[in-house]
Amino acid sequence: MKFPRAYTLAEIGDLIQCKTFGDPDFKITGINEIHMVESGDLTFVDHPKYYSKALNSAATTILINKEVDCPEGKTLLFSQDPFSDYLKLVEIFRPFKSASSTISESASIGEGTIIQPGAFVGNNVQIGKNCLIHSNVSIYDHSIIGDDVIIHANSVIGADAFYFQKRPQGFKKFVSHGRVILKDRVEIGASCTIDKGVSGDTIIDEGTKTDNHCQVGHDTYIGKNCLIGAFAAIAGVTRIEDDVILWGRVSINKDLVIGKGAVILATSGIDKSIEGGKTYFGLPALEARAKWKEMAALKKLAEDFNAKKS
Amino acid sequence: MKFPRAYTLAEIGDLIQCKTFGDPDFKITGINEIHMVESGDLTFVDHPKYYSKALNSAATTILINKEVDCPEGKTLLFSQDPFSDYLKLVEIFRPFKSASSTISESASIGEGTIIQPGAFVGNNVQIGKNCLIHSNVSIYDHSIIGDDVIIHANSVIGADAFYFQKRPQGFKKFVSHGRVILKDRVEIGASCTIDKGVSGDTIIDEGTKTDNHCQVGHDTYIGKNCLIGAFAAIAGVTRIEDDVILWGRVSINKDLVIGKGAVILATSGIDKSIEGGKTYFGLPALEARAKWKEMAALKKLAEDFNAKKS
Amino acid sequence: MKFPRAYTLAEIGDLIQCKTFGDPDFKITGINEIHMVESGDLTFVDHPKYYSKALNSAATTILINKEVDCPEGKTLLFSQDPFSDYLKLVEIFRPFKSASSTISESASIGEGTIIQPGAFVGNNVQIGKNCLIHSNVSIYDHSIIGDDVIIHANSVIGADAFYFQKRPQGFKKFVSHGRVILKDRVEIGASCTIDKGVSGDTIIDEGTKTDNHCQVGHDTYIGKNCLIGAFAAIAGVTRIEDDVILWGRVSINKDLVIGKGAVILATSGIDKSIEGGKTYFGLPALEARAKWKEMAALKKLAEDFNAKKS
Repeated sequence: MKFPRAYTLAEIGDLIQCKTFGDPDFKITGINEIHMVESGDLTFVDHPKYYSKALNSAATTILINKEVDCPEGKTLLFSQDPFSDYLKLVEIFRPFKSASSTISESASIGEGTIIQPGAFVGNNVQIGKNCLIHSNVSIYDHSIIGDDVIIHANSVIGADAFYFQKRPQGFKKFVSHGRVILKDRVEIGASCTIDKGVSGDTIIDEGTKTDNHCQVGHDTYIGKNCLIGAFAAIAGVTRIEDDVILWGRVSINKDLVIGKGAVILATSGIDKSIEGGKTYFGLPALEARAKWKEMAALKKLAEDFNAKKS
Repeated sequence: MKFPRAYTLAEIGDLIQCKTFGDPDFKITGINEIHMVESGDLTFVDHPKYYSKALNSAATTILINKEVDCPEGKTLLFSQDPFSDYLKLVEIFRPFKSASSTISESASIGEGTIIQPGAFVGNNVQIGKNCLIHSNVSIYDHSIIGDDVIIHANSVIGADAFYFQKRPQGFKKFVSHGRVILKDRVEIGASCTIDKGVSGDTIIDEGTKTDNHCQVGHDTYIGKNCLIGAFAAIAGVTRIEDDVILWGRVSINKDLVIGKGAVILATSGIDKSIEGGKTYFGLPALEARAKWKEMAALKKLAEDFNAKKS
Repeated sequence: MKFPRAYTLAEIGDLIQCKTFGDPDFKITGINEIHMVESGDLTFVDHPKYYSKALNSAATTILINKEVDCPEGKTLLFSQDPFSDYLKLVEIFRPFKSASSTISESASIGEGTIIQPGAFVGNNVQIGKNCLIHSNVSIYDHSIIGDDVIIHANSVIGADAFYFQKRPQGFKKFVSHGRVILKDRVEIGASCTIDKGVSGDTIIDEGTKTDNHCQVGHDTYIGKNCLIGAFAAIAGVTRIEDDVILWGRVSINKDLVIGKGAVILATSGIDKSIEGGKTYFGLPALEARAKWKEMAALKKLAEDFNAKKS
């Protein structure tokens, strides 16, 4: 998330009442989680295991729970509870506002776009030209939709990430204030859910099509011209490159990369990053040919075992 | 389901035109299926296999299709077709009423609760304080929702149980007139479905969170502070204890108990009750360590087999 | 799809600017894909592999990209791009029209039918008597629904087929203009999606019931009195005969036949046509008894392997 203008380190420190280290006029232009940061961003870290990753990331301001040495050219904010203070900032810069109408007055809707009855279009949503948004679709605030996009009935664009931190007094929710971006010529099937980024964006790139009942997790990127079969479960923070094909009911874990042009056969589950240009099958998946060979061997072994027994 | 007042055996006998056995003034305070009954309840049984279970259950009035001996301190109703007569009673005490507005006038909605456009709130629904009900959510009649509950877009609270009895002339539907109860701080993802109880309640207890596309069957209980991953398929009449974690796409069969703190890994299928405090994996699932050991052995056996062949 | 009246070969040739072969007054009464054609229909073919199938099908007019010999009693249309020209015809005869109200004025709704708030009923939809259409259901144009049908909340009837052809400049969408037909006493669970046929019909026959989160693909036929468990993924152009039972989370591939009375156990995947009257299990599925025997053998082999190792 980019701020509406650059804030100084001193201003941000005041907003969340945290001690700062570094030039008080140092510019902070946005806020993001560690896997999405760029120069100008503030990120947070609350576990020693990730201190080094955060301090050495592209982020130029780090909100941290230990008074560590500050890397050259960066600034720090010290907090007892960086997670909560990060959420406070997100909440300040992009607060939830309830809707006053089915299609928000702050939404912009391009020429030639049809919005069928019952579709909800939230605050600050942008929809391009010649789109078709079917009945009872729900588009949460701040979503951005390109031209020639089709969204079938009852799909949900921009619900919250499923992201909770266990604390002694119960779950602390990492409130999502990112966005969903659907680029030109994307088509989303019926009853799909595309979650917003936590503080960044979930992106589906040009020309990609999904069948019905698909789930795309927060901060995930899906490339151009992919075909995503029904019931795809794509977890958060995963990257699917261009021209990937998922057949029906494929599960993909979080934080993975699916290489360009990979084909994943129906009902497969992906628990590791996979190379592009190959076909995969199984639960968990292998390259399809290897999996089929393994299955054939096991079938034969079981037959021999049962033949010997009888 | 509790009746609005206690009814006598004679009154209930009149309502469904059934012969009674026992004190005509015997009090009946509610109606429930066999797995949910308590003292004062009427239950039904129509198969000799279950006569003894029904007669010896906590239910104090039994609707039965054979003139058996009546247990001490209980009463009986005799019916040619207990299933149909039970449905008749349910229908009399909680009939379906069509909605006259998007938010029923008989619904009660607590202070600070936001209901986004397109959400439907049925008759006699109770929603607590500071809840957020997103767009195009459907909440069927009689649902009860606590404080600080979030329900994401297009989820359905309180649809009917999937419960049919095959008869020569086609399926006889066991019409659902129970409720869904979501307790304080529950969060339901987008496009989820939580079915109502048949004559009892489906309950999700305090602090439990579900991701998108989850299904919870009728009369199921989910404990406190559970995390339920996307595409969970939890069948009816199952009991999930506190602090259970389901990763994505877990399937759980009906009538099971999932022990406190159990963790079930993604894509697993549970077909037996499982102990708490352990981690499970597979289709069908074993304890994860045992399953992984089995998988490793099979992988090696297949490799050896294929190596020998070539 | 049947045309509103019979068209002549010459008229159709004019509409799509294609050269014709045969009697210019030859009657064309409708249009359909190859697997659904009957006498009077026009169908298309664009790949030499399928020329013979198309020319020898029940279709009496064939739109083709090669000047082949015309079978006796048939006529031909020649096109550089039969797929696109077929789509043009479909678009001419059943164009998409945006809705002007939540319940279209062109919809016909039978006596005693209840439509709950938020349900969308598209153009030319026909709904029979005594149906119950729950809140936030979406029914696309031209759907036909019989008597005594129940559709639970947020289900989608008649979204487009997931049907794209890869072309150098991106995906070409095969726009769907068929219908969904739900016959008498069908019950559809919550959050289901039943896709329309491409140019034919997707049909669910009398008395069949589905649980929640089911998907039925385009041009699929489901017979009478089937029970379809939650999360069923039934692909397009598949035929499920009467009295079939699917337990939860069953996947069925496209172009298959599931025989009368087959029972498919939970989480199974069907990749071949299967005989009726038997029970199946597994991913991919075998007859359940054979699968269980195989699973028991593999379990024992893995145990022996691990015992030897330690």
